[in-house]
Amino acid sequence: MSLGEFDFIRRHLHTAPAEGVLLGIGDDAALLRPRAGVDYCVSTDMLLAGRHFFGDEPPADIAHKVLAVNLSDMAAMGAQPRYLLLSAALPQLDEAWLVPFCRQLQAMAAEHGATLVGGDTTRGDYVFNITIIGELPAGQALRRSGAQAGDEIWVSGQLGLAAAGLQQRLGRLRLPENVAARCVQALQRPQPRLALGRALLPLAHAAMDVSDGLAQDLGHILQASAVGADLDLPSLPTLPALRRLLPEQTLYPLLLAGGDDYELLFTAAAENRPAILASASASGTPVCCIGRIRAESGLCCRQADGSVWPLERQGYDHFD
Amino acid sequence: MSLGEFDFIRRHLHTAPAEGVLLGIGDDAALLRPRAGVDYCVSTDMLLAGRHFFGDEPPADIAHKVLAVNLSDMAAMGAQPRYLLLSAALPQLDEAWLVPFCRQLQAMAAEHGATLVGGDTTRGDYVFNITIIGELPAGQALRRSGAQAGDEIWVSGQLGLAAAGLQQRLGRLRLPENVAARCVQALQRPQPRLALGRALLPLAHAAMDVSDGLAQDLGHILQASAVGADLDLPSLPTLPALRRLLPEQTLYPLLLAGGDDYELLFTAAAENRPAILASASASGTPVCCIGRIRAESGLCCRQADGSVWPLERQGYDHFD
Repeated sequence: MSLGEFDFIRRHLHTAPAEGVLLGIGDDAALLRPRAGVDYCVSTDMLLAGRHFFGDEPPADIAHKVLAVNLSDMAAMGAQPRYLLLSAALPQLDEAWLVPFCRQLQAMAAEHGATLVGGDTTRGDYVFNITIIGELPAGQALRRSGAQAGDEIWVSGQLGLAAAGLQQRLGRLRLPENVAARCVQALQRPQPRLALGRALLPLAHAAMDVSDGLAQDLGHILQASAVGADLDLPSLPTLPALRRLLPEQTLYPLLLAGGDDYELLFTAAAENRPAILASASASGTPVCCIGRIRAESGLCCRQADGSVWPLERQGYDHFD
Repeated sequence: MSLGEFDFIRRHLHTAPAEGVLLGIGDDAALLRPRAGVDYCVSTDMLLAGRHFFGDEPPADIAHKVLAVNLSDMAAMGAQPRYLLLSAALPQLDEAWLVPFCRQLQAMAAEHGATLVGGDTTRGDYVFNITIIGELPAGQALRRSGAQAGDEIWVSGQLGLAAAGLQQRLGRLRLPENVAARCVQALQRPQPRLALGRALLPLAHAAMDVSDGLAQDLGHILQASAVGADLDLPSLPTLPALRRLLPEQTLYPLLLAGGDDYELLFTAAAENRPAILASASASGTPVCCIGRIRAESGLCCRQADGSVWPLERQGYDHFD
């Protein structure tokens, strides 16, 4: 069935009126009227078939990932997502594909308190771009630049699953079926850590989301904060089965440089440890202390025997 | 020369501090602190090589068009552009291509009072997505829905040049060299009508920009406003040489359904005619009255002899 672009927008992407939205989809721009006393934070991410997802994945999985990646940026700032704009290049207007895509996108946006207020569609191989606008109490955003010597370094969830899932899908790893399914699930359905991010506003000194690999992303915090760090490799959280199945030479690169984790990486004063554990528990998000910030620059990863792990490739380079 | 993504962002897309920007490029999101008493309007447009521009065009022309298309949406709302986010898929990080692209983007953004606050880059065939955030006095935005029976219909600039330029580039028209150059210039370097858009805030009842063709875009105003219109074809503004060179069977489809004009289409009470002409003159933007809104629905295009022009194809369908 063929649909015109405007019918498509009307039928599948129209949303109910929402607080702060004077005008949503359907004009040249949406109109927002922000409240006083809040900061707005805004971020954009583009995902391409064959690069960020497989074009043959279920459309609901693609929608989940496209939105999760953007929500994760809001989590990393401690923000409440409010408004979304979606641009989509699609090979054709295929309702069987679009309906589950749009349904998942709308459901997930609603779940996290965000409203789709604008968009653009065009014909082409699958490309999705979301711009997301969030809000948070004035002056409280979590930045990359606040880490202080002596801070403990924390990460949420488990690392390396998405990277292992990708290697499995590319035929470079052969994991047992149940382990592979967990890892592919992590690749296709990352969980943005929004509740944890907001809970960290008064607790963390610096934060970001791990999207390009732990070592590279921690490097951004270190650079922005002009500090260094010691990481304790055995304490990096991952799926126990991966730790059991994979030799360290395979496992550590997945944990340190795998990318696509969309977990929160943050630093906080040691005295905040009880409050952090309580926030993690309240938000249903496991967290793990993986190292410590130091004044001296550089990143040192120590193995169980105290020896230093050589960091060859720090993470995902989008132009490698 | 090969560059990392982060070096690329730092070197070419970093911008100076700007009013209202607490945090720009370099963290997971930018932080904005909007002023009270203003409405924010936000819009997004995705442009793909081979669909919206030719991949072999000069990078400065591509940058101009990508930004102009987005600025034109702000003009159509009567907004002052403030913040931009750019997502780019690029086949490689080629400085010889990127430097003129970024320079043009930054210069044009600065010219119109906008600041780049975020972005995303990835590898792929050229795709550019800009999200633009503008501001305007609370409650004053120009919408598509305000047209009233009796309003005069106006359009800025000249129509059909970009469409003729595209036909020329595709070898489907053979215009004299100087005429072809004017038309290709209109295709590659559309001029967003921002000053006119802002001047129209107290004068126009409805407005939008003509991007998909006059007939289709006017149709959106008619639908949103629940009115109809009579258009006077001989009064449609275009390049005199096109009117001289092309038969009506070629010319009128270019004017009515060509697309890519990025001119302002607006309706206003007849009593505002002197003020509209004065605003057009003050903003250096020619405007032309091309018809009238009527209560009865439908769009009727009349030729010089009073007969009705049959509208076959209303405009550009992104999925044709």
